Amino acid sequence: MSSRHDYPHHHPVATRWADNDVYGHVNNVEYYAWFDTAINAYLIEYGELDIHGGETIGLCVESHCSYNAAVVFPEVVEVGLRVAKLGRSSVRYELGIFRAEAQEPAAEGWFVHVFVGREDRRPRALPDALRAALARLEPDGA
Amino acid sequence: MSSRHDYPHHHPVATRWADNDVYGHVNNVEYYAWFDTAINAYLIEYGELDIHGGETIGLCVESHCSYNAAVVFPEVVEVGLRVAKLGRSSVRYELGIFRAEAQEPAAEGWFVHVFVGREDRRPRALPDALRAALARLEPDGA
Amino acid sequence: MSSRHDYPHHHPVATRWADNDVYGHVNNVEYYAWFDTAINAYLIEYGELDIHGGETIGLCVESHCSYNAAVVFPEVVEVGLRVAKLGRSSVRYELGIFRAEAQEPAAEGWFVHVFVGREDRRPRALPDALRAALARLEPDGA
Amino acid sequence: MSSRHDYPHHHPVATRWADNDVYGHVNNVEYYAWFDTAINAYLIEYGELDIHGGETIGLCVESHCSYNAAVVFPEVVEVGLRVAKLGRSSVRYELGIFRAEAQEPAAEGWFVHVFVGREDRRPRALPDALRAALARLEPDGA
Repeated sequence: MSSRHDYPHHHPVATRWADNDVYGHVNNVEYYAWFDTAINAYLIEYGELDIHGGETIGLCVESHCSYNAAVVFPEVVEVGLRVAKLGRSSVRYELGIFRAEAQEPAAEGWFVHVFVGREDRRPRALPDALRAALARLEPDGA
Repeated sequence: MSSRHDYPHHHPVATRWADNDVYGHVNNVEYYAWFDTAINAYLIEYGELDIHGGETIGLCVESHCSYNAAVVFPEVVEVGLRVAKLGRSSVRYELGIFRAEAQEPAAEGWFVHVFVGREDRRPRALPDALRAALARLEPDGA
Repeated sequence: MSSRHDYPHHHPVATRWADNDVYGHVNNVEYYAWFDTAINAYLIEYGELDIHGGETIGLCVESHCSYNAAVVFPEVVEVGLRVAKLGRSSVRYELGIFRAEAQEPAAEGWFVHVFVGREDRRPRALPDALRAALARLEPDGA
Repeated sequence: MSSRHDYPHHHPVATRWADNDVYGHVNNVEYYAWFDTAINAYLIEYGELDIHGGETIGLCVESHCSYNAAVVFPEVVEVGLRVAKLGRSSVRYELGIFRAEAQEPAAEGWFVHVFVGREDRRPRALPDALRAALARLEPDGA
């Protein structure tokens, strides 16, 4: 299990009313929505990803999550993000969900993006700005 | 149209990846999810609403929204909240969605809660702590 | 209050696990997602709406819902759809949510689309195929 | 890769407008919502799971999905469901998402439920009715 400081980037997520399900805690599915949000917010802000018109877009080809502790609306959590493998056209991210002041994650997962052409949906090499931004999230990327 | 300063309470909402729809902006439905989130976060924090075990809960009986401008992930917005009518067992909220630094709302709406017993779902008078918290959001509530 | 037979078109919606909220019934926000789904499915199937590349798209400028009865996952409901006003570039839909075998709606609402150019987002006259499909949902549209 | 006939149970899912994301296809996160829906609908219908008041509830402790092909609103898909491992208090499900007439899955995944007491959230043996329903989804369960 990773700790908060094992993730070089943190993205805050405020839970929403509808994240809670009938069992009174955040539904397991929402954690993936937070992964998607943290990753894409990073790519847009630091990697020049243009989700509206850019030629290259990232598609999820695989994802995973394991759950250790409940999160409950209205708490605010942080998504820790790091890059485990940076390939020519794909990236494997590792992520952790941290409750306030917790060092151990409430959930941990991973997510693989393949970058493709927006029109033909065939693999593309990562654009330079995107690659540079992602390299900074590798274990030795500082 | 109301301005940002016409709302006594503001709740920040960070957009999420999935809020954007196929047309590239936040889907109209999400604004209602933000209303629900801002209202319930306020009731929990200031009004002692216990969503898990409290005897009295709030159910939405009517809602409305009009849309003036697009919001796009990953921007952060604020939900302005005020109380337009505070009845014995019901509350009418008015809400505005404000983009960063905007004085005019991207959307405006209202939302009516009826408070009911958790088990019998029949109307209940608002608990005192809830009423006091909501009274502070009335136009003359400061 | 309208009855099931007051709506000329019906779109089935199977509830999902996450539609239920912490109070054990479908969250008020989801009804709007069902409205959006029923309307757009109709426009795509009968009105030749091309959500991916079409020049004209429909944006929601106003919506409303009033709630009469709870719906609970895993039930299946039907969304009744009719057209109340068909303008040059806008449409006002009226909708009802019907539980199985119910004649009276669990919820009723309305939704206004303005059709705009995909790029400039300025009003456009409704394309002919769309107008013809919508005219069939007017009270005298059979 | 499994085929449609490798799954003993199939649950239909109609896509919704908001399932599509900015890239014009169903967002990767929604597949997990469909998994959750198919599993719980089965447990409620065939296994006497009482999500509102039952003493034993199922919590997700791990999930996974790999994506092979896009799904686009308004299409209707089927979720194939089988049980890979049935333990004393946990179940591992395997799932596939099938587009109309497709024999190969658009996505495949798995999902692990641990059954716990509603109040203490500690592991419980699966209730008999639930176990019997799940045993029918094992490879040799017919």
